[in-house]
Amino acid sequence: MKPPDSHIDLLQKPLYAHVATVRPDGGPQSSPMWFGWDGEHIRMTHTSKRQKFRNFERDPRIALSIVDPEGPLRGMEIRGTVSITHDDDEASFYQGLQRRYGRIYPIEDVDVRIILTVEATRIILIEGGSIVGVVS
Amino acid sequence: MKPPDSHIDLLQKPLYAHVATVRPDGGPQSSPMWFGWDGEHIRMTHTSKRQKFRNFERDPRIALSIVDPEGPLRGMEIRGTVSITHDDDEASFYQGLQRRYGRIYPIEDVDVRIILTVEATRIILIEGGSIVGVVS
Repeated sequence: MKPPDSHIDLLQKPLYAHVATVRPDGGPQSSPMWFGWDGEHIRMTHTSKRQKFRNFERDPRIALSIVDPEGPLRGMEIRGTVSITHDDDEASFYQGLQRRYGRIYPIEDVDVRIILTVEATRIILIEGGSIVGVVS
Repeated sequence: MKPPDSHIDLLQKPLYAHVATVRPDGGPQSSPMWFGWDGEHIRMTHTSKRQKFRNFERDPRIALSIVDPEGPLRGMEIRGTVSITHDDDEASFYQGLQRRYGRIYPIEDVDVRIILTVEATRIILIEGGSIVGVVS
């Protein structure tokens, strides 16, 4: 599932996705994350040592919100579930994200680097601050 | 509770807060919202007709993430609970938000306009993409 042409640029650009997850106590958590877009899936990197990973182990549901920094009344919310795989021995996926976001630095936690792949189930399109469409 | 001087500007500026809530089915929801800051509380406007209101009725817990658009590796996550009050007959709070964000337009839903006031219980400070402090 993917957004229509009107909003696809928000995935193609190296913007921040604000990622909502559910904590073990059932409360929400929100944090900005880099993401990649391969034309089909949003993918993010993380480590298996962090709270967000434990949240996903318990409940794989995710919601991401992304806004257009050039005009933040345009954006979208993507809901779905996350599947977790390990990055390779060189953390190639993470290296690719670093290049996409223009910040290259050493990766010192290759052994615990994971890839979060989002299987979207619903995309809510926002323009002018209002919902203008839903992909489901 | 409020963030230290290093991050207070993120509340003083008219940025977007990405608001995570928990839906009735226990899954996360995320959406960008305007907010006001009176030196003590983050306040937002909404209507009592929307899903987010129903989410808060069921579970008042909220998480907001805000990033510095000038350097998005700096930001914060605020967790807490929301209390709900009605805006006044002129939707004065909403009008104030419109002025803050420089977008003035008619308010046609004054009767259902509510104010969401965040009682923060934890503030997580981010710099250089890493957690540099927690206020709790």
